Amino acid sequence: MKTLKVGVVGTGRIGKLHVNNLMSRVKNATVVAVTDVVYDSAQALAKQWNIPKVYKDYKELVADPEIDAVLVCSSTDTHSIIAYEAVMAGKHVFCEKPIDYDLGRIQKVIDAVEQKGVKFQVGFNRRFDRNFKKVRDSVQSGVIGAPHIVMVTSRDPEPPPVSYVKVSGGIFLDMMIHDFDMVRYLSGSEVTEVFANGAVLVDPGIGEAGDVDTAIVTLKFKNGAIGVINNSRQAVYGYDQRVEVFGSKGCITADNETPNLTTLSTAEGVTKEKPLFFFLERYNDAFIAELDGFVEAVLEDKPTLVNATDGLKPVLIAMAAKKSLETGLPVKL
Amino acid sequence: MKTLKVGVVGTGRIGKLHVNNLMSRVKNATVVAVTDVVYDSAQALAKQWNIPKVYKDYKELVADPEIDAVLVCSSTDTHSIIAYEAVMAGKHVFCEKPIDYDLGRIQKVIDAVEQKGVKFQVGFNRRFDRNFKKVRDSVQSGVIGAPHIVMVTSRDPEPPPVSYVKVSGGIFLDMMIHDFDMVRYLSGSEVTEVFANGAVLVDPGIGEAGDVDTAIVTLKFKNGAIGVINNSRQAVYGYDQRVEVFGSKGCITADNETPNLTTLSTAEGVTKEKPLFFFLERYNDAFIAELDGFVEAVLEDKPTLVNATDGLKPVLIAMAAKKSLETGLPVKL
Amino acid sequence: MKTLKVGVVGTGRIGKLHVNNLMSRVKNATVVAVTDVVYDSAQALAKQWNIPKVYKDYKELVADPEIDAVLVCSSTDTHSIIAYEAVMAGKHVFCEKPIDYDLGRIQKVIDAVEQKGVKFQVGFNRRFDRNFKKVRDSVQSGVIGAPHIVMVTSRDPEPPPVSYVKVSGGIFLDMMIHDFDMVRYLSGSEVTEVFANGAVLVDPGIGEAGDVDTAIVTLKFKNGAIGVINNSRQAVYGYDQRVEVFGSKGCITADNETPNLTTLSTAEGVTKEKPLFFFLERYNDAFIAELDGFVEAVLEDKPTLVNATDGLKPVLIAMAAKKSLETGLPVKL
Amino acid sequence: MKTLKVGVVGTGRIGKLHVNNLMSRVKNATVVAVTDVVYDSAQALAKQWNIPKVYKDYKELVADPEIDAVLVCSSTDTHSIIAYEAVMAGKHVFCEKPIDYDLGRIQKVIDAVEQKGVKFQVGFNRRFDRNFKKVRDSVQSGVIGAPHIVMVTSRDPEPPPVSYVKVSGGIFLDMMIHDFDMVRYLSGSEVTEVFANGAVLVDPGIGEAGDVDTAIVTLKFKNGAIGVINNSRQAVYGYDQRVEVFGSKGCITADNETPNLTTLSTAEGVTKEKPLFFFLERYNDAFIAELDGFVEAVLEDKPTLVNATDGLKPVLIAMAAKKSLETGLPVKL
Repeated sequence: MKTLKVGVVGTGRIGKLHVNNLMSRVKNATVVAVTDVVYDSAQALAKQWNIPKVYKDYKELVADPEIDAVLVCSSTDTHSIIAYEAVMAGKHVFCEKPIDYDLGRIQKVIDAVEQKGVKFQVGFNRRFDRNFKKVRDSVQSGVIGAPHIVMVTSRDPEPPPVSYVKVSGGIFLDMMIHDFDMVRYLSGSEVTEVFANGAVLVDPGIGEAGDVDTAIVTLKFKNGAIGVINNSRQAVYGYDQRVEVFGSKGCITADNETPNLTTLSTAEGVTKEKPLFFFLERYNDAFIAELDGFVEAVLEDKPTLVNATDGLKPVLIAMAAKKSLETGLPVKL
Repeated sequence: MKTLKVGVVGTGRIGKLHVNNLMSRVKNATVVAVTDVVYDSAQALAKQWNIPKVYKDYKELVADPEIDAVLVCSSTDTHSIIAYEAVMAGKHVFCEKPIDYDLGRIQKVIDAVEQKGVKFQVGFNRRFDRNFKKVRDSVQSGVIGAPHIVMVTSRDPEPPPVSYVKVSGGIFLDMMIHDFDMVRYLSGSEVTEVFANGAVLVDPGIGEAGDVDTAIVTLKFKNGAIGVINNSRQAVYGYDQRVEVFGSKGCITADNETPNLTTLSTAEGVTKEKPLFFFLERYNDAFIAELDGFVEAVLEDKPTLVNATDGLKPVLIAMAAKKSLETGLPVKL
Repeated sequence: MKTLKVGVVGTGRIGKLHVNNLMSRVKNATVVAVTDVVYDSAQALAKQWNIPKVYKDYKELVADPEIDAVLVCSSTDTHSIIAYEAVMAGKHVFCEKPIDYDLGRIQKVIDAVEQKGVKFQVGFNRRFDRNFKKVRDSVQSGVIGAPHIVMVTSRDPEPPPVSYVKVSGGIFLDMMIHDFDMVRYLSGSEVTEVFANGAVLVDPGIGEAGDVDTAIVTLKFKNGAIGVINNSRQAVYGYDQRVEVFGSKGCITADNETPNLTTLSTAEGVTKEKPLFFFLERYNDAFIAELDGFVEAVLEDKPTLVNATDGLKPVLIAMAAKKSLETGLPVKL
Repeated sequence: MKTLKVGVVGTGRIGKLHVNNLMSRVKNATVVAVTDVVYDSAQALAKQWNIPKVYKDYKELVADPEIDAVLVCSSTDTHSIIAYEAVMAGKHVFCEKPIDYDLGRIQKVIDAVEQKGVKFQVGFNRRFDRNFKKVRDSVQSGVIGAPHIVMVTSRDPEPPPVSYVKVSGGIFLDMMIHDFDMVRYLSGSEVTEVFANGAVLVDPGIGEAGDVDTAIVTLKFKNGAIGVINNSRQAVYGYDQRVEVFGSKGCITADNETPNLTTLSTAEGVTKEKPLFFFLERYNDAFIAELDGFVEAVLEDKPTLVNATDGLKPVLIAMAAKKSLETGLPVKL
């Protein structure tokens, strides 16, 4: 088996995570170059893992002929530009989500991928979670029959700073976007209409910034199914990530992951572990699995499990949800 | 303790159930008279339980001075008329849900109850389920803080005949009406807006009859919380009745009841019992508890847990949901 | 269906419980007479339920020709005498456990039952618990194959007074005797050898009284299976009553019953309800079911589910366990 | 942080597993040399991971001054010899269990470790399972009070070949030895007496080889607690590995790990995933954690979590259990 030579653009939290996984856990891949706008950050990471090349400019990395694939882990506003350039340079690309919030720029990337025939994967890591994958596989296998109702509960353990909310695009674009991808993945169908219900119940500052912190969105799917997603910026008991697909022949649910499977019974009560705290804990294995999937797709010339169009669709749904909340009316896609 | 003397109007399925419970399980009450449009049915039941009086006309029963309280278990279209007359005759009344689908007639009953100062309880038996009661009590106690999200899953094991759907008022009035009562009960707040999503996925005949068989309704509450109810006319694994209230300090969920708590592990898998089949099994104890509550309210002069206004509100919400489904728009209450 | 006319000897806690159940919950039976050494107790209970006859002496009750069946709920030392006399008077007998601690006296009852051809049932109520019955039925059905390992966990919420321990015969005869019956019931086989391990860990007074408060007994069965029972006089989280049968094709376990099926998630943890507090709560339905079973056995001339020999066997096993603990050696039966 | 240079003796299944983990998952360690009696096996593994040195004789590896620590993964009969020589050469040693079945040879290793002051760890990997560790930590923290009853269920998914049973020392030495270590770990106390119950229920060939395939062993502990372990060579539903510690203030249990946390409800039943198939799946993370622990103990000069004496004790208990089964009598340690 060939080893995939990877260049990583962006060595912040998520870039570091991917480099660590690529160097220690992901099969048949190695990082040969890194770059970051904070050069010292890239250099420190390179030193830690004996990565041979550190570039000052991402354009040098993209142009490096030794590199097979580029991971785009830079700031969100640069995703589509760097992804586009890497694709045009003939590189396979793994791009953190979202590709962009501008539909034209996303389309440009999609067109480039088609033109160059390279592999492209978007970082919707939750598709690789063992629980959600099992739910998806069960739906696909027909064991629950035709899907009728798709439900996603997705609640963060603590709210982001208001400053983040101001630039993130809001709850639908920075948080529920994962769930919009999830309902497409689980239902195997496209969303045709959304209606958004929202409230400011966690942090008034989020309301002042023009966003909501608690939201329920109902959805219609092309295959006739209906669905609902609920989000909260703060579940005090930890990261609450559950899904359920109900169909003509049955229902499949996925429960939260916990630090262990012990139960403690005392005079006070019968206690189980809380859900794993946040996404780094819950999706630790999923982050590895998504890169394993990307590397395999490239080396064995298979389709990626989350392609460029899968990067576009959740943005469209999120924008529709945003519009629904603003107008108080359902919005068709 | 005095014994409450009860007259029962209507000895169909639910009337029989209540008579059985009153004669064997409910404390401090006894049935002294029954009546039914099918006289033989009333007579047979009276014989089984040694009930002294069988009336041919409900008006005789309502006029019987020995009777303290009247149970209205007749056909839905006669609920408000009989309830009104019983109230006006000074009887305490337990009335099966819904009081009526005509708001004017419900209001007439409410006014009569106020005028006569009698006890009035509507048959929303699920409030007396040990699980939902615990959820409600937990919300009231403040242990989950302020409620943010209220969720109800309510799915029947098998669809009713299409003929029933044609006269029942449809899924929102004959089925989800219980859940509209439930969200008021759990949230401790009033519904201010609904948006309904519906689909015909179980039985095309239900669609031809102008109804849906699968529905998701999102709700806004006066206290700022938001909520969602999902219904299906057919869950092949049995009666699926779960609720969840998520709040600022935690989340409480209630799971399904099962025939027993065994787990079987074989080479095929690890299997638990399915939910109890339908409402007669699941709410067996709740049917007893609601009458215990009614009898206690009368004998000890306490407010009933589900009063006449509680009978009106879910009808209003159901009608709004129906309108939302028809118009495709959210409807304010 | 005929109604079984029952006379009850002993109106203490368990006698009262049975009378309540017979008068309100058990089908096709009514109590026509009661007696107790404390006459006032019998009289009060008779008044509460309109029971026509109150006898001063149990011999009068046993001789009453109107009575079909006698419930022996008197003090343990009188069980075998009263049961014997009732059987000899041609009455069907339901006898609280144990029949006796003297094997000769138990045998006398067994012989009398055989001679008179009456129905006889011992009050091993746990056989009628919905969970244990399902485990037993599953073993019998062959779904777990041949039973290999039978496990019973049985722990009381609080220790009895030391004064009780002094006269009760000790942990094996007053507590584990239920579990000895349970392993016979679950395995469908007879115990051939026991080895007892015991310790005084809950209350030193129990040790001073010559008993242990914590015990593990391993067993061998005639069918080749092996088993283990563990007992504690004090589980601070409530009445812990679980069983497991492991076999060649699978394993079936029964979990504890709880007040409801809610789960509360807060910053402190994820909490479920504790087990129901003690036997009156846990075996409430089983107490009714055992009498339903007895009444049905008499009226329909079927074998009782717990016959006189089933009353003898656990006493034999308990005595062997006691001897094993005293000698530190395994004891064959 | 320094990197620990490791030499691995034995590149069979477990040796390969450790090398893979050391090269990809374990922190601050690298394998610099391997050896095996099957030279090709060692060479192939070295090639796969770019391990610089492949020795033909383990004595060369033990003598290599570059090597800090030796992993003894050779056949069981050579463990104590190689471990002894490595210790005497001043190497830190990680030795697969059991060190030996000969008590004198184990003692020789223990003495050598003491004399040379090196780190020594035995491969009781289950101590590093997240569930059992949590149970142990809970017991140590005092949250369940004083331990009264320690219970271990440990069942393999399929029996080993009879040929293996003939040389393995039997169920107590090759299988239950893990559980003897576990009860010491969980109780924090030493075993003082055992009584063994055994049966041949899975494979008559195992009986013909002089062993049992189903066993229950009860134990007494120095701290007064009592315990029980049950083993089966074949649980058709997978690897069944559960523990429970019951104490004066509560009870803590650890359930099985599963491939995911989904629940499927259909007309046939409510199904959860079976336990992970066998030890390679269940203890995957524990194998990594034990080496992380060993490396940390060496680099930071801390005691290992499973020392040489911990290697001796379970062998002593296993031999006592074997003797108990043979004699039918309890055996003191």
